[in-house]
Amino acid sequence: MVGHPGHTNGIELAVSTVIFALRPREGFDSSLLSLPLVRRTRGPFKGRWALPGGWASPDESLVATASRNLLETTGMKSTYLEQLYAFGDIARSPTGRVVSIVYWALVRPEQAVEAEESENVQWFPADDLPELAFDHNLIVEYALWRLRTKMEYSRIALAFLGETFTLTELRHVYEAVLQKSLDPANFRRQVESSKAIVRTDDHVTGGRHRPPRLYRYNASVELTDSGPLSHHQI
Amino acid sequence: MVGHPGHTNGIELAVSTVIFALRPREGFDSSLLSLPLVRRTRGPFKGRWALPGGWASPDESLVATASRNLLETTGMKSTYLEQLYAFGDIARSPTGRVVSIVYWALVRPEQAVEAEESENVQWFPADDLPELAFDHNLIVEYALWRLRTKMEYSRIALAFLGETFTLTELRHVYEAVLQKSLDPANFRRQVESSKAIVRTDDHVTGGRHRPPRLYRYNASVELTDSGPLSHHQI
Repeated sequence: MVGHPGHTNGIELAVSTVIFALRPREGFDSSLLSLPLVRRTRGPFKGRWALPGGWASPDESLVATASRNLLETTGMKSTYLEQLYAFGDIARSPTGRVVSIVYWALVRPEQAVEAEESENVQWFPADDLPELAFDHNLIVEYALWRLRTKMEYSRIALAFLGETFTLTELRHVYEAVLQKSLDPANFRRQVESSKAIVRTDDHVTGGRHRPPRLYRYNASVELTDSGPLSHHQI
Repeated sequence: MVGHPGHTNGIELAVSTVIFALRPREGFDSSLLSLPLVRRTRGPFKGRWALPGGWASPDESLVATASRNLLETTGMKSTYLEQLYAFGDIARSPTGRVVSIVYWALVRPEQAVEAEESENVQWFPADDLPELAFDHNLIVEYALWRLRTKMEYSRIALAFLGETFTLTELRHVYEAVLQKSLDPANFRRQVESSKAIVRTDDHVTGGRHRPPRLYRYNASVELTDSGPLSHHQI
């Protein structure tokens, strides 16, 4: 090893977060998988959009830094925050070597609607992004792949929803993330035969003749299984 | 953010690798899931066993550093090398903040048998380790969980085997990793109905009356799917 043992020779460590939420589509009865981006106010890539993030902090764990950045940038707290990947290609930043530990977060729609937008913080459709700073397009592409893969074998879709929800709301989450229409009857059968959610005795309030039943998630099944790290780093 | 923007305030970046291989058990007709460890020759934790690794290098990608460390420490090349997790708890090193990007590697048995052992490099059974330096016991525990989880839905078991193999050899991989006996007839049915491997026209050579048939993996199915990163970082 060249250089001082114990010294990383000027490699900088950053923490960034891909934040997914479902946002209502104007004029449609459906939602759009979206993420907030921050406009860079200085170089490199001044003026381009980038993932929210910042430098790693010596007195915070990585996940604490990700969580703080999320709150500071968007005012949101996440229902789901998990480490995605460490991106460390040599040439990913033009001004020196930066390794970015990237997290991904899911937030509930009401938070995503309330989240402040400003000139330098805006929401974008996850599948239709401009050219971002650094390798952030690749990072979002990878995060989307992980989200869609995980939707098929875990209960992660529930992180987009409130405490209780209708089956139609749950189906809309799957449709927005997977970008395809699902047959309502088939979907109901599949979900009801799984143990992921349970019926409540409540229904949607309002003046409807047959108000839809509310469901909640099954608390005896973990939202996602991280094995030995489940109770360790969050 | 406190301090100089763009400066990580003395956080050191390390790269370590959990290397799994199946090693023959002396006196048994089965293999043991094992990993090589390196004895620390200086503090902290002087004299304790630790994962092979070293400091991140400014002119190498993270995976290149992991691959080089693997070769330098054990003389082995990996058939499978994937990023596991970035461990970044504040207090994981007593001499200062160190973030470790950890990879996991699978190597074939012939490599694992040939790999040199020395006073300071030795193989240990993956499920029966001494108290390791730093948080390396937790890291191995997490790597084992990932390996076992992945065995159930991907073709990763094949990374432990050579180009061709018998069904018995494949079953022994599953038995060693999952630590349970599997019914040979059931196993054969399940594997043959999957698309993961294909029959060859060859059989094990030797003087046996009915030599077992050799199989190879199905090259049209990726060993493991890393989505958009598949062709990017290895």
